[in-house]
Amino acid sequence: MTNSTHRPDLSPTAEYSTHLAVRRLGIDTYQESVAYVRSDCVVCRSVGVEAQSRVLVRNGHRSIVATLNVITGDWLEPGHVGLSEAAWRRLEAHDGDTVNLAHAPPPDSASDLRAKVYGHRLDQSQYERLLRDAVAGRLSDIELAAFVTACAQPQFDVDENIALTQAMVSVGEQLQWPQTLVLDKHCVGGLPGNRTTPIVVAIVAAAGCLIPKTSSRAITSPAGTADTMATLTDVDLDLRTMRRVVERENGCLVWGGAVGLSPADDVLIRVERPLDFDSDAQLTASVLSKKKAAGSTHVLIDVPVGPTAKIRTPAAAAMLASRIQAVAAAIGLTVRIEITDGRQPIGRGIGPALEARDVLAVLRNTSDAPADLRRRALDLAAAVLAFDPAMPGHAGVRKAQMLLDSGAAWAKFEAICTAQGGLREPPAARHSSDVSAASNGVVVNIDNRRLAKLAKLAGAPRSPAAGVLLNVSLGSPIVAGQPLFTLHADSRGEMAYARAYLAQHPDILRIEEPTP
Amino acid sequence: MTNSTHRPDLSPTAEYSTHLAVRRLGIDTYQESVAYVRSDCVVCRSVGVEAQSRVLVRNGHRSIVATLNVITGDWLEPGHVGLSEAAWRRLEAHDGDTVNLAHAPPPDSASDLRAKVYGHRLDQSQYERLLRDAVAGRLSDIELAAFVTACAQPQFDVDENIALTQAMVSVGEQLQWPQTLVLDKHCVGGLPGNRTTPIVVAIVAAAGCLIPKTSSRAITSPAGTADTMATLTDVDLDLRTMRRVVERENGCLVWGGAVGLSPADDVLIRVERPLDFDSDAQLTASVLSKKKAAGSTHVLIDVPVGPTAKIRTPAAAAMLASRIQAVAAAIGLTVRIEITDGRQPIGRGIGPALEARDVLAVLRNTSDAPADLRRRALDLAAAVLAFDPAMPGHAGVRKAQMLLDSGAAWAKFEAICTAQGGLREPPAARHSSDVSAASNGVVVNIDNRRLAKLAKLAGAPRSPAAGVLLNVSLGSPIVAGQPLFTLHADSRGEMAYARAYLAQHPDILRIEEPTP
Repeated sequence: MTNSTHRPDLSPTAEYSTHLAVRRLGIDTYQESVAYVRSDCVVCRSVGVEAQSRVLVRNGHRSIVATLNVITGDWLEPGHVGLSEAAWRRLEAHDGDTVNLAHAPPPDSASDLRAKVYGHRLDQSQYERLLRDAVAGRLSDIELAAFVTACAQPQFDVDENIALTQAMVSVGEQLQWPQTLVLDKHCVGGLPGNRTTPIVVAIVAAAGCLIPKTSSRAITSPAGTADTMATLTDVDLDLRTMRRVVERENGCLVWGGAVGLSPADDVLIRVERPLDFDSDAQLTASVLSKKKAAGSTHVLIDVPVGPTAKIRTPAAAAMLASRIQAVAAAIGLTVRIEITDGRQPIGRGIGPALEARDVLAVLRNTSDAPADLRRRALDLAAAVLAFDPAMPGHAGVRKAQMLLDSGAAWAKFEAICTAQGGLREPPAARHSSDVSAASNGVVVNIDNRRLAKLAKLAGAPRSPAAGVLLNVSLGSPIVAGQPLFTLHADSRGEMAYARAYLAQHPDILRIEEPTP
Repeated sequence: MTNSTHRPDLSPTAEYSTHLAVRRLGIDTYQESVAYVRSDCVVCRSVGVEAQSRVLVRNGHRSIVATLNVITGDWLEPGHVGLSEAAWRRLEAHDGDTVNLAHAPPPDSASDLRAKVYGHRLDQSQYERLLRDAVAGRLSDIELAAFVTACAQPQFDVDENIALTQAMVSVGEQLQWPQTLVLDKHCVGGLPGNRTTPIVVAIVAAAGCLIPKTSSRAITSPAGTADTMATLTDVDLDLRTMRRVVERENGCLVWGGAVGLSPADDVLIRVERPLDFDSDAQLTASVLSKKKAAGSTHVLIDVPVGPTAKIRTPAAAAMLASRIQAVAAAIGLTVRIEITDGRQPIGRGIGPALEARDVLAVLRNTSDAPADLRRRALDLAAAVLAFDPAMPGHAGVRKAQMLLDSGAAWAKFEAICTAQGGLREPPAARHSSDVSAASNGVVVNIDNRRLAKLAKLAGAPRSPAAGVLLNVSLGSPIVAGQPLFTLHADSRGEMAYARAYLAQHPDILRIEEPTP
């Protein structure tokens, strides 16, 4: 306001100064930028802000918008402003830097958000304005929650979905490739252990097709593809390095978070995770914008369906598929949807390193390779290769199997990992503990959600070696005392938590007498 | 999980204990309950929670649900959990109490919220479940934001508005009165200084009619009726005391926050304030549920319309009025809507004590009483009295004027204040400063929003004596150098902030040469 001095004056008499010394408080608020100021701070009063006001914090040429929390305790020194971890990261501050605090102006997109909240239709340029504000951190969590809720409404139709998807593409980086055929695959998720992606990428790249794959880390699951790949090689590549790897090896397996493709998606996740929802519209925009931004032209989408998977019924899968197809066509992507069996996990391992071992076993053709993971990966790879006009009919199926059996896929996987920084063996957990069957019978049901929770309690994905290793699957005949699965954990404490959860939920695997 | 001990063990080896010592951190997060735990806290890992997880904090028989923030700094001692002010208040904890931390079960209404977010229609029992969770603090800010956004959609029709309103009534306390005619008035707000309520209540109660009035404190304005009344008497009454005052004096002027009528409304405000919106549906449910819960039968609603008021056009006012009428009829309330001139403030004062002085001047019939406030209050009081079949035609108009002119309304106001705890004179600010006209002309426009902001920068409503005292109104002829208004503040700092804001916005009152 009336600030004309450039040197900070933090003495108690500096009544009109809007300068404060910044302090990193080490408070993880997930993604929300929070600024903490004392209730007797003159700056608060001077700019008329109070708890939950949005404030502009300026540090030299850099500035962020943060939500204000007011400290009534005395553990923050006068003349200081504390920052949450997210705010600290975004402001790129150093302890003791002098920052300026002001009332944040309403974001450019305030009227767009208001229109959307009141159920009006927005066009692509309005979505772009909104998403630019979201990516720049100018929207609070509750504003983002209002936005994703408004986009989940039934009147949010395909046309608007197209506008949102194109806006998500255009506010981030975009890759372009000289090839006319750029392939990709994606799984909508929700099935533990379904780690086909590294195998599919290796096969497709070995076939000579381009597949510049970016993947996410776990949001609510025990492992994302990026977590699994991080136990084998470096995944935290920038866009230039990613491009170099793909130019050399036809494919890559990198973490999407670092490359800035469709960054709005990463922002929206921060409220979708705690709200625990993901509308068809948002899922469609999220998946297709990432693929389009990566320069893909043809995408296979795996939709596992099962009672404890993310998509629970064939009808729900069909509705999602038709929306994805319509939006994809409008933004110039060719998409094929593969509805797959989502009743049980794929492979034996659940957790980053345990899943990586399954992947290695399949690629190396070892005798203990999980047959279901091999089958699923081959089917998906064949479907991806079928986009190539040079592989008509069943040529893709034969090609995929040949590349895997011959070791060509394994060689390609090694080459990709080498290009990304070198191939490592995944770590092993310090503790393991078998869980045995209490009775004879047959496995008749597997609760995917609780199995995922069990792996997380054992430490996955924070401890990459932790998780669950399954010995049985649906239909397996069981003898009492037979080990059903093994818990892996890096600490005795985590092992105990997993065991306690198991005691409360003994029927994660339900075993029944076979009907005579 | 595996916790069988009842005595807290906070030593570092207590690896499986879920007990933590609680600490009040003095962090004002507005209304959200936040629990702060160290990243190395075994409880976090044992229950598998992370930043933004919802956790259940139990202290003896009392428990709350809070959002988790993870502390990576070392200023929180191991074995401790810190609480935000809202969490501390709700848990009724004492420093050092031993509390138990667990993963919060999903609220009972989780599926209702999900259905609403996906645009489905809910019935009254579903809204009751949702609002009970909201009142009990089991919904996070982002869940509340999703809820109010879903209720702002165009398909949220009158029928659903009725269900929501009835649910808001039924989750709180409800008053009943023996009389068949229980009157009330309400202003939808947005106009600084429009403090007619104390005058209307005094007149109506003096006429022998029942008017059990509850009012709110300021949310975004420089003063609410409860703030103004708090400078004159006690307003923080419980439901029993409020009932006693009304039984004795026919009316009361209390703060609604303490009496528990429609408590869900107070919860929803916590996201409507930062989102800065208030849909017609939410406004209707908010106003009518409070009146219904207070036992009112007939309600007059003042809707000021003007370019810088809350309702900006006659068309918007008509839409709101028709919704209010339809919902009121369904829940058994008789409502009359009064569309009033919202182009400029009413009375001279803006700020709790300055508005109280205007109210006293009108009630005491002093020569400096603002004529516009007197006129507006008389009109509204007459409209309220017209609900009484004993006052047909213009009888209410004559009665209201007679009661005010004779001093009967003033005597009733004194009696109500005495019953509430005694009448006081409002405080005066320590500093005042005149703002003068820069040129000759006529006042052609007043920006209500910026005027309100100016009063807030001067300290209102936190400093009850602070605010703005107007000397002129629309159409006043102005001579350069003439004082337009006076700023009142309790500190020189606040006076300086108000003056600085004024320097940036010199046209809060626009003065132009009269057209010749």
